[in-house]
Amino acid sequence: MAPIEYTQVDLTDDDLAREREVYGGLAASTRAFAEASLRTTVDEATVEDVRRQLDALTERLRASEIERSFGVSVTTHGVVRAHGNAVVGLRNPVAVPLDVQRDASGRAGAAFHLGALYEGPPGMVHGGVAALVLDQLLGEAAAAGGSPGMTGRLTLTYRRPTPLGDCSAEAWVEQVDGIKTTVRGVLRPADGETSVEAEGLFILPRWAREAMERDQAHGRPIRFE
Amino acid sequence: MAPIEYTQVDLTDDDLAREREVYGGLAASTRAFAEASLRTTVDEATVEDVRRQLDALTERLRASEIERSFGVSVTTHGVVRAHGNAVVGLRNPVAVPLDVQRDASGRAGAAFHLGALYEGPPGMVHGGVAALVLDQLLGEAAAAGGSPGMTGRLTLTYRRPTPLGDCSAEAWVEQVDGIKTTVRGVLRPADGETSVEAEGLFILPRWAREAMERDQAHGRPIRFE
Repeated sequence: MAPIEYTQVDLTDDDLAREREVYGGLAASTRAFAEASLRTTVDEATVEDVRRQLDALTERLRASEIERSFGVSVTTHGVVRAHGNAVVGLRNPVAVPLDVQRDASGRAGAAFHLGALYEGPPGMVHGGVAALVLDQLLGEAAAAGGSPGMTGRLTLTYRRPTPLGDCSAEAWVEQVDGIKTTVRGVLRPADGETSVEAEGLFILPRWAREAMERDQAHGRPIRFE
Repeated sequence: MAPIEYTQVDLTDDDLAREREVYGGLAASTRAFAEASLRTTVDEATVEDVRRQLDALTERLRASEIERSFGVSVTTHGVVRAHGNAVVGLRNPVAVPLDVQRDASGRAGAAFHLGALYEGPPGMVHGGVAALVLDQLLGEAAAAGGSPGMTGRLTLTYRRPTPLGDCSAEAWVEQVDGIKTTVRGVLRPADGETSVEAEGLFILPRWAREAMERDQAHGRPIRFE
């Protein structure tokens, strides 16, 4: 298995702020369109006309594009730029997105809205979406606490359904044992009562340890975008 | 906790085929736009112009819309219509979507493509996306085998990273014990070697048992859309 590559980019804080505005804005608009496309009840002729115009916009964006996925890059100033990430990615319309608050004691938390796009049972958050969000947040807690890793095992216990709407989630490092970090977390709907509990084991692979030794910016980023 | 409501709709097979064409088409175009928005490298002026035009399209779709989420409905002919589902929903642009093959022996499988929108580590499928897909598939296997339930516990073991690209997943019922069904499953990238293993416990809540007794169509649907 080839090591996972983080690219280096030379971007200033101003560049990053501009990216947030332009591409974060595009992703927000795309999310709004996606939700409207799911909930619309306009007539079929309108749907088909909207689709044709959307396809034309897609072609304009495709005139020039990166070859594969967005990847994760680290700026020369130590900022980790995971704009393509499926949960927190600023540029990823599939992402909720989660605006994660991190604490060096090994805690991470976020408040977010799970709307119609994240439905499983009628009116409820999809159980797999709860897993998706918690996997990311537990990983962030491990990284924030200085013991990052990739998910080795994740166990989710569903206490009750999570209604769609405002939610929050929290994760905290429970134990660090060499390259293995145990993290726990919870998801809560608007009423504040835990609906899903998670426990995760995060393991730092050898290639990542070597990369961290090579370049401290990978292991102790100064900021995440 | 109020029971989760499945609505009844009176749709023929022709109506459903038309929905697939119109709304399935819109969702496919929206997914393509979303991926283009993530991968584009066109100049910022173009991005901002595309965004303005997209916002105008969103407004056209919003002229008339359902109030909350799409929900899950059952047609008078016993077809389960989960078009808003975050993993398999025909109308949900966030959904992969998964075209699930079901077997009454309690097996479910799907082949699908996880592209740039599902990235976690650079070039790799997000661990939470693997959980999202497997949660849905394990639940489908339980339902296909005649012992449906909601996820009670889900454990994922990550054997190695899953590269973005073509993937497949399979799930099968391991044991049925009254209202509790144990299901196992795997995710495999293009090389066919298992990257993620899952074990899930699915539990049928009392309100669902009562609904199944009231209306057999809920318990033994003739088809899923």
